[in-house]
Parts: sequence; structure tokens; C-alpha cells
Amino acid sequence: MDRALALATRGAGAVSPNPLVGAVLLGPDGETWGEGWHGRYGGPHAEVWAVRDAERHGLGGRLREATLVVTLEPCSHHGKTPPCADLVLDKHIPRVVVAQEDPFPEVAGRGIQRLRENGVEVTVGVRGHEARRLNEAFRTHVHTGRPLVALKTAATLDGRVATRTGDSHWVTGPDARALVHRWRAEMDAVLVGSGTARADDPALTVRDAPLKRGQTQPLRVVLDRAGALPPGLGLFTDGAAPTLAVVADGAAPAYADALAEAGGAVLRVPTHDRHLDLGALLDRLGAGEGMPEGVRPTQSLLVEAGPGLATALLAQDLVDRVLWFVAPKIVGEGTPAVADLRLRKMADALAFVEATWETVGHDVLFRGALRAAV
Amino acid sequence: MDRALALATRGAGAVSPNPLVGAVLLGPDGETWGEGWHGRYGGPHAEVWAVRDAERHGLGGRLREATLVVTLEPCSHHGKTPPCADLVLDKHIPRVVVAQEDPFPEVAGRGIQRLRENGVEVTVGVRGHEARRLNEAFRTHVHTGRPLVALKTAATLDGRVATRTGDSHWVTGPDARALVHRWRAEMDAVLVGSGTARADDPALTVRDAPLKRGQTQPLRVVLDRAGALPPGLGLFTDGAAPTLAVVADGAAPAYADALAEAGGAVLRVPTHDRHLDLGALLDRLGAGEGMPEGVRPTQSLLVEAGPGLATALLAQDLVDRVLWFVAPKIVGEGTPAVADLRLRKMADALAFVEATWETVGHDVLFRGALRAAV
Repeated sequence: MDRALALATRGAGAVSPNPLVGAVLLGPDGETWGEGWHGRYGGPHAEVWAVRDAERHGLGGRLREATLVVTLEPCSHHGKTPPCADLVLDKHIPRVVVAQEDPFPEVAGRGIQRLRENGVEVTVGVRGHEARRLNEAFRTHVHTGRPLVALKTAATLDGRVATRTGDSHWVTGPDARALVHRWRAEMDAVLVGSGTARADDPALTVRDAPLKRGQTQPLRVVLDRAGALPPGLGLFTDGAAPTLAVVADGAAPAYADALAEAGGAVLRVPTHDRHLDLGALLDRLGAGEGMPEGVRPTQSLLVEAGPGLATALLAQDLVDRVLWFVAPKIVGEGTPAVADLRLRKMADALAFVEATWETVGHDVLFRGALRAAV
Repeated sequence: MDRALALATRGAGAVSPNPLVGAVLLGPDGETWGEGWHGRYGGPHAEVWAVRDAERHGLGGRLREATLVVTLEPCSHHGKTPPCADLVLDKHIPRVVVAQEDPFPEVAGRGIQRLRENGVEVTVGVRGHEARRLNEAFRTHVHTGRPLVALKTAATLDGRVATRTGDSHWVTGPDARALVHRWRAEMDAVLVGSGTARADDPALTVRDAPLKRGQTQPLRVVLDRAGALPPGLGLFTDGAAPTLAVVADGAAPAYADALAEAGGAVLRVPTHDRHLDLGALLDRLGAGEGMPEGVRPTQSLLVEAGPGLATALLAQDLVDRVLWFVAPKIVGEGTPAVADLRLRKMADALAFVEATWETVGHDVLFRGALRAAV
């Protein structure tokens, strides 16, 4: 299953809105007969590739002795491809080991049921936690209709994202910045607030990391309640990636024409206390409403926001994962990474159900989950 | 030499103001004949113990074939014990491998010179960097007359040491707090400001870590410019460890009598812009001026200060080492770990010449050196 999980990750960034899946066919003595993974949205599933791999090795006639190890329940419905449960039955594979059930409503246990009813021995839950983490964006989207929200922050030891004059170049080192490009490549969309857009006009594209064949740049989502950002921003004109400008109902952004010409779109969401309703925004991103041409619903959203938007998302409990770089430097007075969360006691601080620390160049990266995987 | 360095650390906290030293006697085939370390101030040096160890193993007659591996240059002067260079000559040990020269003015290469003049083959500098780090407090004190200053901080990811209501219990977990007790046990003195003393009345004693036989609690140094702290604070009355109250010239602390009765002392230092002159304080601690009865000059000072004192020490470039815990939590608006350092550019942030990250329980510990080892 470890091998199947590793194979699954090869599809990262290229299969959304499908889940990542890896599969291994084992012979009776545990030897590997075939491997496969879901590598491209609309392409064959992992099980199909594993069977083809075994056949290419001349083992197609021996699948009645094989065990299929797969990170996700084989599908039971006709989607873009025929059901994988039928493939298992057609090939007379007698044993299947599954890491997790498929939460997708059209499957949801029916694939496993179909296999068992036809005499296949099915084991479920092997490395289930890891498999759920692997597809947390897919699972979150299926369960909540919203994207998985990952908040990225880069601060000094003393928690500053900029000096008292506003200078922020650079907090972290090149390794950390390159890793952010890898994350962009794995996520469906990147979100920034108007302050960041105005100050930095970031390209938000994947440059320091490879894009897979057929993979597109992530959607750029820019919050601009009043529609007041300068029309000349590269985000609206460069066409380097699709851009979605989020404005309040009734705002008339001056950049609408330029944005439309560059293939972008304007999404209108309601306001709440004079702020954009961020929950409503996540609902619409998840539903794929008002997207630019050819952009699929957002399952995963990387927030590269300044303190204002970061604080709003945290205060409204809209963040699933925190990706926080701490740089080995002290800057003193400056812009704090997070503003007021209205917490009175240290014991009430936002804490994490899962967390890891790892060094990235000279910096340290904290990865924390604010809630358990669904 | 790795073994000798490991042996040396066994004396940590018990040998000040002497350096930590470890020694290994090797036979002609590299086999270990004897081991020793300097374990107690005034006690025999590492070389003596290594020779005794070899003699106990019946190898005393074969020292003419041995190599002495020692982390510090053998001494050449009569201190509390006879010179170790003479011991090497008396025992006819033909080869000595030394990690670092002794910076102590009465030795400073003379031990090595004496050995070489008498035909001993001496190699110097093996693992010298590690050996210098091991005795950085001793070396800093010899070179500057001041203690090595280690600033300890415990902050949230967003750099807060307390919430907006001032609550700070607890930022870090039990493992981190226990480690602070180990550091106290290894340092000569612990420094707090009056704000911390007033708010927490911390005991500042070693409780969660073992003290070695003969080892005393570290000196507690409390800054109280105006002499205005409440006389009833445990720091002044509990007698659990010696306390030095630092007041401005002319201040008349109401707790002076209680402090004297508990074995403490009052140190008067000049002020500068209405603040205590911290450089002058370090000079006096290093010189051992005005110490309570029986307390030796301070070679190493652990600062467990709040943001005010931490900022003052950092701004005046008086910190040698930073020990910074980052706790996996976010608290938002609150007390920042460091206040204004008058830095305008991120590129001017305080950076570190050496740094490591390690996890301690759920927290991460950053250890950074603001200057190279002397």
C-alpha cells in the first residue's frame, strides 16, 4: 500500500476534480506484477494501468492468482471510463486491498459491495489515514462543496511579515519560495487580497516547479470588493493564467474589459459587515459558478494573503490547513502575520489537530491541520 | 576526539568558572586505555582522571606507548591543581592530540609549547570548532570579561508571548519548559526584568532537571532600576537560590533587608537615558563585583526576559545566542516577542551566523548564534 500511495502522488495537480489513486498488482508471493496511477483527468484509472502493466509483462493470464492493492475503492459507475469494479471481475482478480472508501456519492461503498457480492475478498482501511490525507482536497470538496483551504504564511521568528516601513523582500529563502511554486502546481486556485495585488501585482503562476503534461496554471482569485484595483495589473492583462476577480454585488470594476479580453471573469458575491462574504465565496468556487472559460470547480485553494485576509479567514474558521514558514531572523516592530482574533487566553489560541515541522533551506516549515481529515 | 568531547559535557554546570574538558588515553592500536573529564570546580583535571583510569586498568606502565586525546590544551600553570603538561611529561606520554588552545591568559599556548619543547608530538585543532562551541561561555568570558548571553524566548507562530489580555500560560509544552530547567542548570545566572518579576514572581530555580553533586542553583539576577519591586517576592525572600537585585545608583530598594537576610545582594549600576546600563551590568557580572556571598563571576547568563528587556539587549547587540521556541499555535493580537529594533528593511533583520532547528515535544526550538564563536 505504501507503494500504491507513492504512485498515487504522481498525478498531483493533473487529475482534479478526480482523486489521486495508485494501484499495485501483486503475485502470490508478494512480487510486483504491475503498477499504475491515475495520471490525468479523463484518462484511465489506476487499476486499468496496473492491469495493462501486468499484461505487458506477460502476466495477463495469471491475474486469477493476483491481489490488487489500491488506494481508493474501485469505482462502480460509468463516468469518463468504464467501472473499475467490472475490470476486477472481468479479469477474475480474487483479492482486493483498499485504503479508503470513495466518498463520491455515485460510488460510496457500492464498488466494494459489487466486488464482495461477486466473491472477491476485499480488505478495507489499510493505511486509510494516509490515503484520506492524500485526497483531502477531493474529500473535503465532496463532503462540504467547498475547496480545501490552505493558508500559506512566511514570517520572521518574531511573527512579522514586513518591517515597520512595509518592506517584505524577502522573509524566507529561495528553497521556501520554490516550494510555494510546487504547491501552486498542486492546487486548483490561488487566492490573494486586494492589498497584496496592489502592492506586489504577483504573477501567482507556477514558475519554479514543473507542470505536468496537460496541466494548466492554477486559477488566480483576487478579492477586490470595490472593484477598485488598477486595470493595468498584470493579473488582469497578462493572460498567463485565468483570473477571477471577486467583487461585491453592484461593484463596477474598471478592469472588467481588460480581464475579459485576457480570458478572466468577474464573480459577484454578497457582502457582510462591509466585507466580502468569504464563506459564500468558497461555496461558489466549490460549485464552479462564474468561472472563466474552461476552469473546473475549485477543490483546493492556496491562500497567499496578507495579514488582513489571513486574519479574516482564520477568525471565520474557514482555514483547513496552515503552511507557515518561520525564517531565522528577527525584525522587531513591523506588520504582524495575524491581526486580532479576539482571543483572551493563551489556552484559547488556535491549535492544530495534526502538525509537523521540517526544515526547508534555512527556514522551518510548519504544516498544521486545523481540523481532522474528513 | 568525539568521545573526549562527549566526556567533557559531563561536567556541564559544575565546573564554572573552569572550562569543560574531556580526555581519552589511547593505546598503540587505538584501543581505549583510560577516560576522564573535569567534573567539579577545584577538582582534578580531565587528564588526571584519564591517567588514573588507565592505571586502574593496569596500564600505568605502558603510558610511554599511549596517545592522549584532550579537548583543551593541557594547562601549564599551578592553579588549584598541578600543571597537566607536567603530568604528561612525568608519565612519558609521547603524543598529545588537542582540540583547542586554552584562551586563559596563564596558559594560552604555553602548555603546548612546554610539551613540544620536551619532545612530545602535539597535534592541535582536531574538532576545534566543536570544542570552542563546547566552552563558548568560558572563552567569551576570557576574551570579553562578560558572560555569554543566551536569550530565551517562547512565542507562538505569529510571534506573540502573550494574548491581548496579557495571558501567557502556557505558550510552549512541558518538554520545552523542562529543557529550560536544564539550561538553567548549565548556566551560572538567570536574568529577568522587573516586569517579569512583578507579574510572575518566578522561582528561576532548577527543578525539572538534575543538579550535579556540589552544583549550586544559578544566581538569579533581577533588574529593578527604581528598587520598586514588592519586598515580599519569593525571589527576595525564599532563599532557594542566591539573588542579585540590580538597581540604579541611588535607588533605595525596600526589599534590601529581606534580600540580605535571604543571602542576596544589591548591585548598583549607572543609568543611561533613564535605563540601566546593560553593558555595564554585564561587565560587573563578568567581574563578579558585588555578588552575594560565595557566588563566582558569571560566565554564562540565561535571559528569561519579557519583550522589553529582550528588545533592549538585542538592540544594543548584547546577545550572543538566541534560544527561541516556536509553539504550534496562533493567537492573533497580543504582546509581540520583540518590540522596535528601528530596522527599516527586511534585509537588515537580525540574522544568525549559525542556526539549527529541532523539535522539542510539539514545539520547535531555534538555536541561533548572532556572532561567531570566539
